[in-house]
Amino acid sequence: MAFLPAEVIKSKRNGKELSPEEIETFIAGYSQGHIPDYQMSALLMAIFFKGMSPTETLSLTRAMLHSGEVIDFSFVPGFKVDKHSTGGVGDKTSLILGPIVAAAGVPVPMISGRGLGHTGGTLDKLESIPGFNTQLDLKTFKDFIAKNKICFIGQTKEICPADKKIYALRDVTATVESLPLICASIMSKKLAEGIDGLVLDVKCGSGAFMKTPDDAEKLAQQLMDIAKGYGKKVIALITNMDQPLGRFAGNSLEIEECLEIMSGKTHLSPAGHDLYLDTRELSLWLSAHMLHMAGRTPSAQAGYDLAANILASGQALKKFEELCCIHGGNLSALPRPKHKLSALAETSGFIQNMNTESIGVAGILIRAGRAQTTDLIEPTAGIEFHAKIGDPIRSGDPIFTLFGDHPELLQAARPLLSSAVNISLQKPKTPSLIFKTLE
Amino acid sequence: MAFLPAEVIKSKRNGKELSPEEIETFIAGYSQGHIPDYQMSALLMAIFFKGMSPTETLSLTRAMLHSGEVIDFSFVPGFKVDKHSTGGVGDKTSLILGPIVAAAGVPVPMISGRGLGHTGGTLDKLESIPGFNTQLDLKTFKDFIAKNKICFIGQTKEICPADKKIYALRDVTATVESLPLICASIMSKKLAEGIDGLVLDVKCGSGAFMKTPDDAEKLAQQLMDIAKGYGKKVIALITNMDQPLGRFAGNSLEIEECLEIMSGKTHLSPAGHDLYLDTRELSLWLSAHMLHMAGRTPSAQAGYDLAANILASGQALKKFEELCCIHGGNLSALPRPKHKLSALAETSGFIQNMNTESIGVAGILIRAGRAQTTDLIEPTAGIEFHAKIGDPIRSGDPIFTLFGDHPELLQAARPLLSSAVNISLQKPKTPSLIFKTLE
Repeated sequence: MAFLPAEVIKSKRNGKELSPEEIETFIAGYSQGHIPDYQMSALLMAIFFKGMSPTETLSLTRAMLHSGEVIDFSFVPGFKVDKHSTGGVGDKTSLILGPIVAAAGVPVPMISGRGLGHTGGTLDKLESIPGFNTQLDLKTFKDFIAKNKICFIGQTKEICPADKKIYALRDVTATVESLPLICASIMSKKLAEGIDGLVLDVKCGSGAFMKTPDDAEKLAQQLMDIAKGYGKKVIALITNMDQPLGRFAGNSLEIEECLEIMSGKTHLSPAGHDLYLDTRELSLWLSAHMLHMAGRTPSAQAGYDLAANILASGQALKKFEELCCIHGGNLSALPRPKHKLSALAETSGFIQNMNTESIGVAGILIRAGRAQTTDLIEPTAGIEFHAKIGDPIRSGDPIFTLFGDHPELLQAARPLLSSAVNISLQKPKTPSLIFKTLE
Repeated sequence: MAFLPAEVIKSKRNGKELSPEEIETFIAGYSQGHIPDYQMSALLMAIFFKGMSPTETLSLTRAMLHSGEVIDFSFVPGFKVDKHSTGGVGDKTSLILGPIVAAAGVPVPMISGRGLGHTGGTLDKLESIPGFNTQLDLKTFKDFIAKNKICFIGQTKEICPADKKIYALRDVTATVESLPLICASIMSKKLAEGIDGLVLDVKCGSGAFMKTPDDAEKLAQQLMDIAKGYGKKVIALITNMDQPLGRFAGNSLEIEECLEIMSGKTHLSPAGHDLYLDTRELSLWLSAHMLHMAGRTPSAQAGYDLAANILASGQALKKFEELCCIHGGNLSALPRPKHKLSALAETSGFIQNMNTESIGVAGILIRAGRAQTTDLIEPTAGIEFHAKIGDPIRSGDPIFTLFGDHPELLQAARPLLSSAVNISLQKPKTPSLIFKTLE
């Protein structure tokens, strides 16, 4: 019997499990242009409503993975490891943990993405460094990993072309927010990197895709199932995204934060809070699990100690500078924003909670982020956080400072930012940074 | 703010009610080619899952209706009335009631469809008459209605082009079976006919889209709501489709049945059952409501009596012959099938029930119907029914006879047909023909 795409769509629509062959044939047909966009978008919407079983999600991942090239890193000795974060506001840990792990001699082949919606993207951050080129071809990527142990590139045309085509379609057909589609998209790209193991940072809270620990754990479990289905080592940390991570959100500002942290600096808030603490700690713990997974240390705790040493000794900074050099980036020319505008506390009390997604949306308004993939961003635009949840604050003190080249945009975004934070008289519990570790 | 199709899709996906402006802009954009197929198919699938409110369905109908021309029949005196059936097996009443009502002086502007799946279509039946042309332009259609009170055409390019485009897309994206989409598609075309009133024949049972009276009533109610929203008179009959209607299912065979009925003939089964009874009665009752709605008679019962007189007097046959003449059809050249093959009863007893959808699918196998819009049909292929539910039958008696030009297809379809009928020793209640009349 001939393969009828409409019958596959109907099966999924009616809640039936699709066979590996049906998924494989549909994705291959779409990737090669035999199945049109309109049938793929109908299938995507049916998947949005009816979900996919673990077997179906694994088949979808495999079909997307094998639509393109899977990098063979067998010529590079050692355990290749990467980290993936599900996205948040101010999440810059890749820029610190990558250099730490590579400095420890473990190869870190990173294929990263751009920011979309309220969450940022590693490529945008790196490209705020003048000259930094993330559009390297696969051969150069492989050479750099072999020689320098680290390299950051974007998805090339060889890597999961089906995912690239499907992702663009999901973006314009309201089918982004589907767990199996998210999992297959993430994992197909990570598996294409030719890694041996993966550390997942699954964000949870007001600035994350998953708002509750339960949902975050479900996402983590599905991602881990796929990795395990491919015989990869995998571990997931469920981490806090109820407030932005670190001192800055915004591309060049986050680079600045990373450079300060890798230089051993702290930045105390008026309340005496080190605003680099969470970025540093999370980067160290993610590095710790990567180092342990790669067999570099006998335990995660020993991995943490090694990572902390590498950071304190300046080796991570040196590796980051070397990374910028091989990518053509000129760190000393990092641009500075032309304008700034502060948002002040209207009452006194303690920072109770933040609507972190709104903070991310304010970032879009000032062009630190994108509403649509075609939006242009400004490298220097961003937000500084002067206080974190649990910090005391006095009426009239600055809570945020907005940065950017267009004062009128900073003005326009300020009210949204101010309304994103709640101050109350009772001191809340200091939130945990890492909720749970799943193996 | 700019109109973003993806935001409209997302609203519907999330179960929100779309505004009339959103629906209007989306359909107009799609019809004009600004919104691509892949966004429309995602919206259709979201509608499949989330449904539409009566207001949304009315807006969708209006948007599809106004994508093309609405025929202005004000130049033709009198109340213009049409009938629409939701589709069944052997349903040929249009070919009898059209001539009856037109013979009574009431204009019947009929824009009909083709068969798809297990249900037949009026255009296919008429086109089994050699030379019968249903592809007339709107001007000719209007002229014939003015002069002859009756004309049957297919959907032209001027009539609801958005519906035509959307229907083709639904067919290949598994989004056909959605109540609001069905209602808007039916009603936009009927409203484009420029009618004053509509009689709905909503089929219910094993051969209908709606299997239960409750579901059929829901469909009837939604269709009536749209008609009333447009200030049209409307009435719905919920009628039996638990078995095929009449003696034949198949295009030229159904024409033959209609000619016999309009010639005053009966056809007794071995059990003494007039196999034309249900076709004749349903045609008369639908005519009755059309005549009463048009003000031609003071009551539906008086409409029935008038219709029965017109049928008995031969005026309906004369009108049908005139209709064939204006459409270029040569009735005396009606083709006859070359081969036949009977399916015999394997046990004795009473016909208990029939899987009428399977009978329709057997019709597709012998090319009396279509599985896909692109399939070709054979005008003489069809099935004769020798017994109806409640009739006694003896082992070895013929239950069905298959007709067509390809003996191997008749052979292949026979087992499906045989398994579609259940015989048992207990005599079942004779089923009602008309379950309910909704006004």
